[in-house]
Amino acid sequence: MRYRLDISYDGAKYFGFQIQPNKDTIQERLEYALEQVYREKIDVVASGRTDAGVSAISQVCHFDTDVTVDERRNVGYINSILPSDIRVLGITKVDDSFHARKSAKEKTYMYNFYVGSEIPVYERIATNLGYNLDIDAMKEACKYIEGTHDFTAFCASNTAVVDKTRTIYKLEIIEVDKNLYKMEVTGNGFLYNMVRIIMGTLVSVGMGKIKPIDIVDIINSKDRSRAGKTMPAKGLILKKVLYSNV
Amino acid sequence: MRYRLDISYDGAKYFGFQIQPNKDTIQERLEYALEQVYREKIDVVASGRTDAGVSAISQVCHFDTDVTVDERRNVGYINSILPSDIRVLGITKVDDSFHARKSAKEKTYMYNFYVGSEIPVYERIATNLGYNLDIDAMKEACKYIEGTHDFTAFCASNTAVVDKTRTIYKLEIIEVDKNLYKMEVTGNGFLYNMVRIIMGTLVSVGMGKIKPIDIVDIINSKDRSRAGKTMPAKGLILKKVLYSNV
Repeated sequence: MRYRLDISYDGAKYFGFQIQPNKDTIQERLEYALEQVYREKIDVVASGRTDAGVSAISQVCHFDTDVTVDERRNVGYINSILPSDIRVLGITKVDDSFHARKSAKEKTYMYNFYVGSEIPVYERIATNLGYNLDIDAMKEACKYIEGTHDFTAFCASNTAVVDKTRTIYKLEIIEVDKNLYKMEVTGNGFLYNMVRIIMGTLVSVGMGKIKPIDIVDIINSKDRSRAGKTMPAKGLILKKVLYSNV
Repeated sequence: MRYRLDISYDGAKYFGFQIQPNKDTIQERLEYALEQVYREKIDVVASGRTDAGVSAISQVCHFDTDVTVDERRNVGYINSILPSDIRVLGITKVDDSFHARKSAKEKTYMYNFYVGSEIPVYERIATNLGYNLDIDAMKEACKYIEGTHDFTAFCASNTAVVDKTRTIYKLEIIEVDKNLYKMEVTGNGFLYNMVRIIMGTLVSVGMGKIKPIDIVDIINSKDRSRAGKTMPAKGLILKKVLYSNV
């Protein structure tokens, strides 16, 4: 039987989602906790990996087991085994056709950043981008990234993915507080480092290195070196994964 | 000569602003760093003390010294001595009549909170208030707290202050993200624990324990036991101090 696992985590202390030898990862912690409950080896499949330091408000996984246990009691018990920075929000029985990665229709990420002087309390959740970013130009640039494009220029070069066409449904920059902003992006899928490269390209616009309209050429060039820097993991949060049946 | 000192800090690790024996405080850290620059004992006076665990996006202090040093170089040098969770934003020469506490005209605090399941990444900045708060009722209650009132009911009982009349210019609850909110309050001054008791009283409204209109009676009663709980320091941030000459 297949189960959907809704989780939330603060990724600051972890080497990303995916299990790696001798590294503390979200997946290893989850599988260990699930194995305490189901008394068998459990393989957890996530909607997508998050990198080292990246957090998730809402991440979705699935796993298979034929062991039957009380679902409600499970959540509390699993959370008592997990460290406090990883929480299971729910476990639901789903159809065997449900696949956390393949069935995902939309994902939303946010990237928290702030401008101006260093504000220690903002450092908890955001990346400091220094002085004098032109936020209006960055907002204008968002429009040129929205839509269906070949995002080769916005993908880390070390990737095995062949089809790099993705659709960005919405990309916006919202002021959260004085000097504090969030970039929020929703798409049907994201390439490796794509959100952090989109953010870096918006920063290039904000710094006046490129104009908003230049985004069109950058996308068409399919040249990674023309897009902006890969921004630090800090500030990046997986906000939501949407499935058609939800 | 008198100097205005603009600072910002993450209060999570400190026992509040004010110097206390054998405790790590913001004031002690600041005075130590200033003494390295000015080579004499410096007494720092803040716009107000913040409690253990309370942070400040923007806090204002003053100090007196007749030692002359290059002001711009100072900021960098002082920050190199300070721990990274305390930052000096600026040092400005001011008139001797300026007093960080007595000259303050307005202060703005914010209190970050969230509802629903535990979200580890929200835990970095906000207090979890559990399920099912009636946010609309809380917003309505804000109106009854705004204005000039004797806030005895909203003051920790162990205080020496005699006149407990204060004016709240603005009190509002703003949705920051899904399930994440900030309460923001601006007034001409705040009694001991007043912001945390206002927040606790709004929570009582949100939980349906009292109605928004009941705030009127609570204020008139001048009875601390009728207002809500003193909410945890976590989530409380001093946002701004306003002076008439700025």
